Order: sequence, then structure tokens, then C-alpha cells
Amino acid sequence: MENELFGQKLKIVNLGLKSFAESVKSLGADVVQVDFTPPAGGNTELIKALSKLNTEEVDKANKIAFEKMTNAQPVLVDILQAKDAIKGMTKETILHAGPPISWNKMCGPVRGAVIGALIYEGLAKDEKEAETVAASGKIKFAPCHHYGAVGPMAGIISASMYVFVVKNETDGNQAYSTLNEGLGKVLRFGANSPDVIERLKWMETVLAPALAKAIKISGGINIKSLTAQALMMGDECHNRNVAATGLFLKEIFPNLLKTDLDKNIISEVVKFISGNPHFFLNLSMAACKSATDTVNGLKNSTVVSAIARNGTELGIRVAGLGEKWLTAPAGNPKGLYFAGFSGKDANPDLGDSTISETAGIGANAMAAAPAIVKFVGGSPQDALNATRKMYKITVGKHTGYQIPQLDFAGSPVCFDIRKIVETQITPIINTGIAHKKPGIGQVGAGILDAPLKCFEDALLEMAKN
Amino acid sequence: MENELFGQKLKIVNLGLKSFAESVKSLGADVVQVDFTPPAGGNTELIKALSKLNTEEVDKANKIAFEKMTNAQPVLVDILQAKDAIKGMTKETILHAGPPISWNKMCGPVRGAVIGALIYEGLAKDEKEAETVAASGKIKFAPCHHYGAVGPMAGIISASMYVFVVKNETDGNQAYSTLNEGLGKVLRFGANSPDVIERLKWMETVLAPALAKAIKISGGINIKSLTAQALMMGDECHNRNVAATGLFLKEIFPNLLKTDLDKNIISEVVKFISGNPHFFLNLSMAACKSATDTVNGLKNSTVVSAIARNGTELGIRVAGLGEKWLTAPAGNPKGLYFAGFSGKDANPDLGDSTISETAGIGANAMAAAPAIVKFVGGSPQDALNATRKMYKITVGKHTGYQIPQLDFAGSPVCFDIRKIVETQITPIINTGIAHKKPGIGQVGAGILDAPLKCFEDALLEMAKN
Repeated sequence: MENELFGQKLKIVNLGLKSFAESVKSLGADVVQVDFTPPAGGNTELIKALSKLNTEEVDKANKIAFEKMTNAQPVLVDILQAKDAIKGMTKETILHAGPPISWNKMCGPVRGAVIGALIYEGLAKDEKEAETVAASGKIKFAPCHHYGAVGPMAGIISASMYVFVVKNETDGNQAYSTLNEGLGKVLRFGANSPDVIERLKWMETVLAPALAKAIKISGGINIKSLTAQALMMGDECHNRNVAATGLFLKEIFPNLLKTDLDKNIISEVVKFISGNPHFFLNLSMAACKSATDTVNGLKNSTVVSAIARNGTELGIRVAGLGEKWLTAPAGNPKGLYFAGFSGKDANPDLGDSTISETAGIGANAMAAAPAIVKFVGGSPQDALNATRKMYKITVGKHTGYQIPQLDFAGSPVCFDIRKIVETQITPIINTGIAHKKPGIGQVGAGILDAPLKCFEDALLEMAKN
Repeated sequence: MENELFGQKLKIVNLGLKSFAESVKSLGADVVQVDFTPPAGGNTELIKALSKLNTEEVDKANKIAFEKMTNAQPVLVDILQAKDAIKGMTKETILHAGPPISWNKMCGPVRGAVIGALIYEGLAKDEKEAETVAASGKIKFAPCHHYGAVGPMAGIISASMYVFVVKNETDGNQAYSTLNEGLGKVLRFGANSPDVIERLKWMETVLAPALAKAIKISGGINIKSLTAQALMMGDECHNRNVAATGLFLKEIFPNLLKTDLDKNIISEVVKFISGNPHFFLNLSMAACKSATDTVNGLKNSTVVSAIARNGTELGIRVAGLGEKWLTAPAGNPKGLYFAGFSGKDANPDLGDSTISETAGIGANAMAAAPAIVKFVGGSPQDALNATRKMYKITVGKHTGYQIPQLDFAGSPVCFDIRKIVETQITPIINTGIAHKKPGIGQVGAGILDAPLKCFEDALLEMAKN
């Protein structure tokens, strides 16, 4: 039988690039356009790695990761000085946000915060001496993440600072984070003037000991429960913590009243927390860390266990790759700036607070927080879109954290590097913005996409094994 | 020239009822269907009244009403016993929710609450005696609304009960409401057992005097500001007040600490408020009343100044009709019931809390409160739809209350009876549901549409003038 194909009028189906379809259509042919993007941007090495990792074994490992992360029950059990809470912490240790970095490569705000911490610890009397000490080799710099801790922005933790001790009651592991200082001119954004140091001293001598007493009396405060409630109240618990801070206050008030503390001290403590709508952030971060740490080293799992930035690089860790960091240059957030500042002043992306997204809140739950756009820019629709997009690159829906705006669907949780590389969609990050020079502080807040490169590198690394 | 119409194939445009279009279409003719509903359901008397009231004069009066209502600045300035705060309040006066009603016509929960109040005031020793006293003619029953007050559900206010004193700083007028007792077995839902009376006594002797001290120290708490913040935090401030209650706590706590009160008393007070996510409701209602009262008697205005239910009838007041009540039988809410109860147990619609919708919050702002559907039923989409629908029957968008989910649009405010009658869309009401028998209490929460009849009657009345 004769082949009739070339005798017929051509009917064309075009996959991918629309311009091809338009060319053919302009010649009078019928064209059906099908949107299509090749996986991993068409990179054959990555496609090969994806094929190798698209196995039931990996799916199964990721399911375990999902269960471990979502079943975590983070409970605030204590507040202790870092030297007493964190194993291996010494007077000369300075923990910082993000992947490892040496003093000479640190960005402005991290340097500013290190200087502040050295003065606060009495290891230097002024900025100049602090720089000498920092460069002397006597100070051990290490990522918070290497010590079970997380720190927002510069993320500096030194020995005398008090840290929240959050215990994951399901697995028994603990995580740590300092207490939030407030917005603006604060250590974590690189400020280090005498008022900043004085506030840290007040936090050490008044705030933390008072809260420690109240927490002991409380018998522990379940942070997962507060976070779940806050998502019903317009927070995403990374860049908007106003409801969660209120809920924490509601938990801690009655216990503060049960202590032997003077009413004036309680007043000071309550005034400080009430005046800082981000107070809950650090607590939430420690809770997230206690959840994400449960998947560290989980064989075959392509789930991301940490995303963290030191202001120079963004690093990720993947469950199946254990403690290895995969890094890429830190990006630049788009956002809203405080009066008098602009994008020119902004340091690249900084802080461990991306542990929020890693654990399924923050930008992943942004649909729950339409009012956040007044702080980070964009529209409430963008907030909905952000969450919807994150479903494409995560393992599942969080069983503990629901988003009322999406019919109470669980928030997208457990980034899967396979899905990220395949779709080339990377995690969205909600973040504060620090001034790039040391000593100034916060200049705004915004959003950015994590760089693709570190996820691609992680995928290739996983495929090697 | 010959008329060619009947020689052509008919092309038909059908307005309104679809069935006409379908009949014609079935005969083979082309039909374009245009959705159309005649105004006021086609009722010629109402259409005439509408024509008469569709004037610039009325528009202008309504614009003034809108400005007065939205410019109100309700501030909590004091807490006093009703006999000291409310002009004309006597030991023998019992105020109730809704339009006027006599003892013999009162529904179960209102009777239950009246009985409780008489026992609480020492005017009767038990239920039986209370019924005799109530029927004796010695008790003066009157709507809260006649005394500048509002009460949720049964809305009972008696002389010894403390009331919030909310002052509208813009116009100087004041409004009053009792303190919220909590959910379940409480006076306002018709319960009157010894534990209910005991709680009222504790509120009178401990809670209210403590709060009064703190409020005096605070110098006044701006309720409008708390409400605006709460709308950003998932409340609609009628049936969901969890964020607003937290915000109130945050305001009051530091001031409680500044009083001479013992820490144990402060603990009791804080525990009570923390344990009742609806504590803010009554405060919000008094704030709404202080805003809506500003339009009472405003000549030519077709804006609704009050919607209130006594469990038997729903009554409305319209600015241009002054103190006149227009009533219709109270409807039956659809909602979610507490375990062990169903629609069979429900009393018809009850309470002054519809002052919330009258002032532009509650169901009008339901889009801001997706999580409320867990309490009243429906889906988050229904919540969005409710707010969108209310824009069709209101004068404008509130300048003080924004809805983040709708791109920070102001909430729909100032019901215009012209728009209600024309569109036949009536205000949506968020409400608690009381058991129909006295002495039991709350059995659920839900939603319903206000009856059209009272708005039609009001329109005809306005058109007469």
C-alpha cells in the first residue's frame, strides 16, 4: 500500500519552543502547540543522574525523610548559655550562619557581628582589636549547623549568649538558637555599637534567665503547636512572626507570673517581647532545625536537610550526602527597603533562617500570610503562587502545618533535589536584608530564588554513590 | 418599503428566565440569553419606592453616614458597673439583645439568661422565683440598643454587671458591652446554673476591677487599631477573635503589671482571657456600636445603623428612620454543632453581635478569616465569596479595615437598604447558636442570611417620608 502521508495536508504537533509552531503556522499549516521543557534544561549529564536516581529506593528513602521531618515534635525545654548547652562550644568559638567560611572571606555584616561578639565576650576592647583577634587564628569559626544550632542573618553565637534549647520529643535530638534581638540596628544584621552590646548584655543577665525560669515552670512549650496556630493567623513563620510571637507571649505570661521574679522584671521582659514581632523567629528556627536534623545522613534520600547562607555563599546539605555542603554564590534578594536605603546597600543573601523553608514553612507557607507582602514586596497573589510553586519540588504536604487559604492543604515540605533539577524550579527564600558594610544593620526584607547550581552539584554527587 | 422582519430568520435576545430561551431554542431559533433579574424581585411598590429614593440627596446622606461610621475611633476608656456607666440603668432593669420583646414572648435562651441575671442580682433565689419575678411586671425589660449598649446572644445586662466603656474619640459618643464569659455553658447562651452565676460573680469582683485598674493606667486602648491588625491575622472579629484577643492581652498585660495587684490575681485574669479566644468579641461589639450610633437619625440616609436579634425576631434600624425598629421573624443559622447537638436543638438567630456586620466586619470581612470555616462551616472560598457579595449592598470600602486576601481592599461597610432591596441580597450574619431551651447554653456556630422583609419594610417607610 502506498504511503499517503505526503499526499495529505500536514497536521503538526509542536513540543516546546513556541516560535517553531508560529513559523509553521505562518506557512498555513495546522499546528497544535504543546508546552514542554526538557528536564534539567536538557543537560544530558544531569538527565543521566536523574535517571539513575529515579528509583523506588530513593522514593522510599524520601518517604522516610518526609515522615521523620513531619513527625518531629519540637518543644522548647530550656534556655541555657551556649557554652553550657552546645557540645564543643568554647570561649574562643564563634559560630556563624551558612556553610564554612574563613574570616578573610566573610561579608561585611558577618564581620560586623563577629567584631560585636568579640567585644561582647570581652575578647577585644574595641573594633580594631576585634579585627586583629579575629584574624589572629586564635578564634575558631564554624557554622552553627555543625553544632546543632542555627542563627538568623549573620547568625553569630558566642559562648556567653543564651540559646533556646528545643528538643524534638519524637527522636530526642536537640537544636539551638539565640534569642532574637529585634529589628534594625542589631548584631545579627552586622551592627556592633555600644547600644547593641548593651542590649546583648541585658538579654544575658535579665531576659534569658527570666525566660529560663518561666520555661522550667511551664514544663516545656510545644513550638509545633504554636507554628500550626500561627499559620491560621497570617504568619508564615519566617518573615512574619507577629501571631506566633503573640502566641508565645500568651504561653509564657502565666509562667512568668508563677516565678519569684519581681513585677518590674516581668514587665521589662514582656515589653521587650511585645515590642519585637520577630521574637518567635529564632525559636521557630531551632524547632525547624530539630526537625530537619532527623534526616541527616539518611541513605539514598535526595531530600534537602539544610539551606544556609553566609552572605558570600549559599550552601545546601542533602540527607543522603550527610554533612557535605554544596555551595553556590549567594544571590541578591528583591524586596522593600527601610527609608533611606536601597538595593545598592544590600549584602547578598545571608542567614540560617532558610531552615524554615527546608522544614516546610516560610516561603513554602507564604499563601498563609498575605499580609507579608507589606514587608517583603509583591502581592497576595504572589504569596499564593509561591506556595503553589513549592509543591512542584517537594515530597509531600506537611501533616502538621496547614494553609487555610488553600483549603487547609498541608504546606509543601521536603525539597527533593531531583524535582528541583528536573523542573529547574529552586526553593523560594523569604529573607531579611543586611547592609553590606559592617556596623550598620538591617536595611530591608525581601525574596529570592535559591541558586540552581548547588542542587545540580548535589544531584551529580548523589548519582556518583 | 415593505417590512422585512417576518421574512427573516428570527434572532432572539432573551432577558431573564432561561426557560424561555430554551423553549425558543428547541424550536430551532437562535437565542442569545442575557441574565437579568428585575429589581426588587419585580415588586412594583418597591420599585416605586426605590425610584423615589434613588436621589442625590440620599446618596449624599449615605456618604456622610459612611464617613461618620468609618472615621469613628473607638477607644476602651473604662470598665464600670452597668448601673454607673449606663444612663437610666436601675436595679430592676434587664437589658436584652435585639428589638423590644416582652417576657412572655422571649425565646428559651433569653428566658434562661434573664432567670440567671435575676438570681445573680439577688432579685430571685431560684429559677422558679425568677420566673415569677420576671412575669410580675416589676422588671423593666428593654433592648440594649436603647441604652447605648450591645450584648452578644441573649445579650443580658443587669445593674451589677461590669461593662466596657468604649468612647468614639471622633464624635465623643460612648457605647457599652459586658465582658465575655467564654464559650459553652454561659449566661449569654441561656445557661444559669450555679457555676454560671459564680463565674459572673468572679468577673464582677476580680476580673473587671483588675482590668479597670489596668485600663486606667493604659490611658485608653484603641480598639480600631486592634481590629485592623486582627484582620491581617485571620480574624473577622465576630466569630473568630483569636488574634484580636491575643492583641488585647498584649496591650493589657504590661498595664496589669503596673497596677498594685498581686501576681496571683494577675495570673487569674490572664488565664481567664487567654483561655477564651472570644474575649475580644464584646469589646469589638461596643466599638462597632460606638461607630454605628454616629449615623442614628441621619436624615435621608438609607444606611442600616443596627441589626439585632432577640431569638424571636430580627430587627433593623436605618439611619434616616431614627429609633424605629423594622422586624421580621428570626432565621435559622446553618452551621457546625458541638458534639451531641444538632439543628433540632438550635434556637433561631439571636444576639446584638450583628452590630459587627453593620460596622463592616464579621461576615463582611470573612475573606480575611479563612480558618473560620472550621467553626462555622463552609470552605475558605465561601468566606471569600461572602465578602465579595457584601460589596454589592454596601456604600463603600472601609478606610480603616483592610482585607489582605483581597489585595488589602477595605471591607464592605454601610449596608444600603436600597441596594439590598434592589438586588434582594441581604446581609450575611456570622453567629453563635444557642440551645432553644433555657439553661443549656451554646450548641454551635454558623451562618445565615438576614430576612429580606425588614429591609423592604424599611424602604417603604423611608419612601413615605
